[in-house]
This record gives sequence, structure tokens and C-alpha cells, in this order.
Amino acid sequence: MSIYFDNAATSFPKPDQVYQAALQAMQQVGASPGRGGYGRALDASRLVLDTREAAARLFNCADSSRVVFTGNATMALNLATMGTLLPGDHVITSCMEHNSLLRPLFRLEKQGVELTVVPADAQGLVDPDQIRLALRKNTRMVALAHVSNVTGGIQDIQQAAVIAREAGALLLLDAAQSAGTIPIDMQAMGIDLLAVPGHKGLLGPQGTGLLAVAPGVQLRPLIAGGTGSSSDQDHQPDSFPEGFEAGTHNLPGIAGLGAGLAFLLETGVAGIGQHEQQLTEHLRQRLEALTGFRLFGPQQPEQRSGLLSLTVEGWDPSILAFCLDREYGIAVRAGLHCAPRAHRAIGSYPAGTLRISPGWFNTLADIDTCCEALISITQKGDS
Amino acid sequence: MSIYFDNAATSFPKPDQVYQAALQAMQQVGASPGRGGYGRALDASRLVLDTREAAARLFNCADSSRVVFTGNATMALNLATMGTLLPGDHVITSCMEHNSLLRPLFRLEKQGVELTVVPADAQGLVDPDQIRLALRKNTRMVALAHVSNVTGGIQDIQQAAVIAREAGALLLLDAAQSAGTIPIDMQAMGIDLLAVPGHKGLLGPQGTGLLAVAPGVQLRPLIAGGTGSSSDQDHQPDSFPEGFEAGTHNLPGIAGLGAGLAFLLETGVAGIGQHEQQLTEHLRQRLEALTGFRLFGPQQPEQRSGLLSLTVEGWDPSILAFCLDREYGIAVRAGLHCAPRAHRAIGSYPAGTLRISPGWFNTLADIDTCCEALISITQKGDS
Repeated sequence: MSIYFDNAATSFPKPDQVYQAALQAMQQVGASPGRGGYGRALDASRLVLDTREAAARLFNCADSSRVVFTGNATMALNLATMGTLLPGDHVITSCMEHNSLLRPLFRLEKQGVELTVVPADAQGLVDPDQIRLALRKNTRMVALAHVSNVTGGIQDIQQAAVIAREAGALLLLDAAQSAGTIPIDMQAMGIDLLAVPGHKGLLGPQGTGLLAVAPGVQLRPLIAGGTGSSSDQDHQPDSFPEGFEAGTHNLPGIAGLGAGLAFLLETGVAGIGQHEQQLTEHLRQRLEALTGFRLFGPQQPEQRSGLLSLTVEGWDPSILAFCLDREYGIAVRAGLHCAPRAHRAIGSYPAGTLRISPGWFNTLADIDTCCEALISITQKGDS
Repeated sequence: MSIYFDNAATSFPKPDQVYQAALQAMQQVGASPGRGGYGRALDASRLVLDTREAAARLFNCADSSRVVFTGNATMALNLATMGTLLPGDHVITSCMEHNSLLRPLFRLEKQGVELTVVPADAQGLVDPDQIRLALRKNTRMVALAHVSNVTGGIQDIQQAAVIAREAGALLLLDAAQSAGTIPIDMQAMGIDLLAVPGHKGLLGPQGTGLLAVAPGVQLRPLIAGGTGSSSDQDHQPDSFPEGFEAGTHNLPGIAGLGAGLAFLLETGVAGIGQHEQQLTEHLRQRLEALTGFRLFGPQQPEQRSGLLSLTVEGWDPSILAFCLDREYGIAVRAGLHCAPRAHRAIGSYPAGTLRISPGWFNTLADIDTCCEALISITQKGDS
């Protein structure tokens, strides 16, 4: 008996068709896409194209050729920031961000990019007015996570997009914790750059991610190498998508991601998100009455997504996680979750939180088991 | 009936245990390595560690923690070059290189790195004396492919390593076409940086690669993001391996690569290489007597590995490849193979060559079928 509650790190299990698609890509197709002209290579190219188009459909990206595959969301965020910002540009981000966004920005700051990290309140929410106040004449980008991987709080992206657009800045959305659980419409929401992991809410295999780029947004490639076309050029072409996907693709991963996207398009993102939110709300309701439990995140339920961070007075979160795993087979994550500043904002620094992140395949019974385990562990009293 | 002869692009099929290991990592393990402390996450970490150690063993890398996983060899070459070279440094490479090495170097040249591209002879071989002649006081790196992906010619790496060491320069070896078929001993051969795809000779899934770094070699991370440790630092740590593997790993890929490495360690690299060379030599012997066939690569058999490039007078290589695929189900690659300068050196520019690259699972009968198909197609006369 084991319960997996670390879907914020990577979703597990995946729909069975994801495993089968990855396996079939390895066993039946095998070749590299976009290179040879023989049958297998064309089959491989078709798999990649199908996944690209499914992703464009899911996010309403205006041009599917501008969906660029990466190895994870981290690479997508590196490409989105290092591929657009230049010394002298100004970028606004928040303290709630994951290191996958903050660290590329701190690196760029060392290279002459101006950086403003706006604060969040104790709920972990960023006030859009803080973004507006941070605007400068040279603001070129507003870069934010849609949902915090620490609190599960949903940021006001609509408002951030309006502010960015009015200022002539790009909006980069880190959808690591929202893609696949909150509907995202790049065109309606005004998203210029959308960075997404393939292996979380999109239900694809690990080793996949993507950056979707709105038409008109100029991007410089991060990685240079073989592109299968324009081979004669000394310099990396910046044509979409091949200029941004140098080297051999992760074909099994992309095929599996395609199956994950097909599952999402069929099942419906809103329904999946609702299910995960219901599970988390149930968890929250059961735990908030308990003495010593501190639950983080927004007060308004509509600002909360399907993950819950908590601490228990007198308990180190990592000890709690260890007990849940060893004694009950419940997998949760403890610590800073690669977002140290978020913990400073919400008051859980430096020990971090215990993060419980259910997925589509979890049930209310799983939540109840976890609640009872938490109660049982913390009431033993030997912290 | 189909015969796959594009193993220089990616090996196919893989040993069955590679598929099973990747599938099991997805279905049974699922979690992200190096993050959570629960059982599944530890299992994932163990899989990654096992693969890292197997790779270090195969290449005699002195410190397995300095084996860095990447998405492909292209990323490894980008990391190896952009992570070491600075404006004012001088780097020597050759005209025989793949765009995955040349394009990062041309980019670095634009940023102030001095670049010398040494020539090759008509066999596609680089004379080590050319490297010696190109040395400058500020030469920081010699970067070469072990085996040309165009000619299959084996470069004199021993001599290049001696020259690099005497000059105090790093030797970066692009082992895309040799790893898994020619024994590579980093310590005995004096290799400082070894870039390897996981999905070619190493028999792992697509979406894998690695850079093995000798002790003492300083490297700067290319990608910044979550590392699962040192989360509290604003800047990307440069500790091995996690500082160079930001974001979620390709666990199924790495698990599959581990199975590929285990297969190689058991079967023996030398025997695999010998088998592929024998197939190619047989192909060469059958074709070299035919009128109009031009076979590329070194004259000395001991300088040839298991791939053969050819042209047939009056035939565009891509038409030949198309006919082989459509009429005989034989998959080969035609064109420049992402190495335009190599073709200028050997005289096959701009149409390129037909490249036939057998693998471990091919047989002499496959070669004979291919020969007869080539003869039959080209003797029809309607080019």
C-alpha cells in the first residue's frame, strides 16, 4: 500500500497510454525525427509534430511551430529568459518563484540585466500593483509563476498580463504547477512565453518540457548544434522550431507527452483541476481544526490550487515526511522546494514546509488515510 | 522486411532490457531523483547513481560524480565549450566536426574566443601536426571528434591528447560515433572532457547524453535552476553533478541508458565495434569494385570504423536513399549529415553522401541485401 502525494514534483502514475506511447516510440519507431527521409524517420517526425500540435491546441498557441520542446521546464525558463533579455533590459519577477526562474534571472543580473524581485504577502500572493510600481522605461519582461509550488496559490496573471502589455513588456508565465490543471489560453490571457514541464500536469514522461512562444516574440537559441536543416550555416539558425531544438530529440518522451496531452484534451483540464482542488480542500478542512497545524496559502478558496503546504508545531517537516513514508507508505515532500524566498514571505523559512500534492489518480480515501496518519504521528508526541 | 542502417543517427533496435528498464522507471518508480526523501524518490536516485557509475566504469572516468547527464551529445558539447572557454581563449578544432561542436564554437568566436579550424586531408583525416602548428600561447582547448560521422574515419586522438597536454590545453573529445564501439579510457587517453550521446553506441533511449569531466577541470553551468540541494543560494552552484543537472532528470531515459551500459559492459565494446567494422568492410569490399561507386574514408582499414559513406556517379544520394527505403525497406541517411565542412574536405559537397551505418544487431545478410539493392537500383540506369 502506497500513496503518492508528490505530483507537484512529477505526476505519478501516468495514464497507461503514456507508457505505451513511449514504449512504442522506442520499440516500433526508433529513428530520429527531422533527419532521415526513410519511413521510420518520417514516423518519428510525425509523432513530434502531433505532440507539438496537441500542445498548441491545449494552450491556444497561435502557431504550433513555435512550441519548442525542451528537457524540462527549467530549460524552457532558461531559454525564455536568456533568449530574450539583454544587458540594459529590466525584468520584474517575484519572491514566490522557483529557482528555475530566479537563478537564470540572478545570472542575467550579473551580466547587466536589471532585476526587480517584488514581494508577496503572507499568503504568498503577489499584488499586481507591486508589478506596476516596479515598471521602468526599460522593462522588457514580467516573469511569474502561475501557481506557487510552495503554497499552491494562484497568482493574478490576467492583471499581470495587462500591466506587462501596457508597458510593452513580455509576459513569461511559468506554468509548472498549473499546466494541465488550470486552463491556459495564451492568446486570451496575453502570454508571450509559456514555460511548461511535460511530466507534471501534462502527464508525460520525465525528460520533457516545452516553451510556447507567441508570434512576433524574438528568441535567441540557447543551445547550438545540428538542426537537420540549414546544415550548411556556420551559425545556429533561429527558425522555429528546429533552431531551438538542436540535437536528437527525446522521441519516447515526446511520444509519451503526446499521449498525456491527448488524455488531457479528452478528459478536460478544468475537471482534472477541480478534482485535485476538491481533494486538497478536503485535506485542508480536516487539518485546519487541529492544534499545532499551520496551513499555508491564500485565504480565498478560489485562489488555491491542488497542493497544500503545512507545518506542525514542534515537528521538523522532514521528520514528518519520513514518518509518513516509513510508517504509512505516503510519499510527500518536505523542505524549501527550491523556492527559498517564498518561504521567507510566508514565514516558513528555513525549515520549509511539508507539501502534499495529490493528482488526478488520487481519491478522497487517500486524503483521509493521509489525515489519519498525520494525526497519529503528531499525537504520539515524540517529535 | 526492413533493415535499419542509420545507427550513426541513433541505434535501433536497442537491447530489450533497455526498453524494459525505461518502462519500469516510468511504471514502478515514477518519482524524481534527488528531491524527495521517500522510498520512490530514493529508488529514482539509485537508478541515476547506478547509471552514472556504469558510465564512469565504461570510460574509466576517475570520479563518477563528474559524469553529468544531458539530453543529448549536443548539450554535452555546448556545456563543455561554453562552460570552459572565455573571451581571449583560443580553441582548435577541425573541419571534420559536426555542427554540434562547430556551431557552439562559432558562437563563442563571436563572443571573443579565438578559433582555429584545422583542415583534413581527402580521406577526412586530421594530421596532428596541423594541431601542433595551430597552437598559440592562449590555446585553452583542442576539440575533436573521435570518429567522423561522415567518413567513419578514426582520428589520432592519442597524438592530439599529447599535443593538448603539452600545451596545457584541455582535450574535448566528441565521442558521438565512437562511444560503445571503440574502447575509451579517459585517464589513459588523457581526455579532459568526454561528450557522449546516450542513444547511439551506448544503446540507451533517445533523450540521453552525458559529459564526463576529468578531476581538476573547472566547468561553469550552462543551465540554472533547481538542484534539489543548496536551494538557498541565489546562484547556480557549480558542484558536481547536481550543479550541471538543473531541473527534473529524464529518469526513464537514464534508467534505459543504465541498461544499455550494462549490456555494453557485459558484451564488451571491442567485440561490438569489431562486428560493426566487419560488416562495413564487407560492404566496402563488395562495392569498391563497382563502376561509378565512390567510397569515402581512410585508406587504412585500422583507421575505419563501422560506417561507410559513398556516392554513385549520376545519382543524387537522397534519391538513392529514397529508392532503398521505398523499394527495399532499407533505412540509410543521405545528405550533409550536419557536417558541411567535412564534405568540402573529402569532395562530396554540396550533395553530400549516402551513409550506411550498421549496428550490433545487423548481420552480413543485411549487408548483402543492401549491396544487391544498391546494384539493382543503380543498374536500372534511370537516375
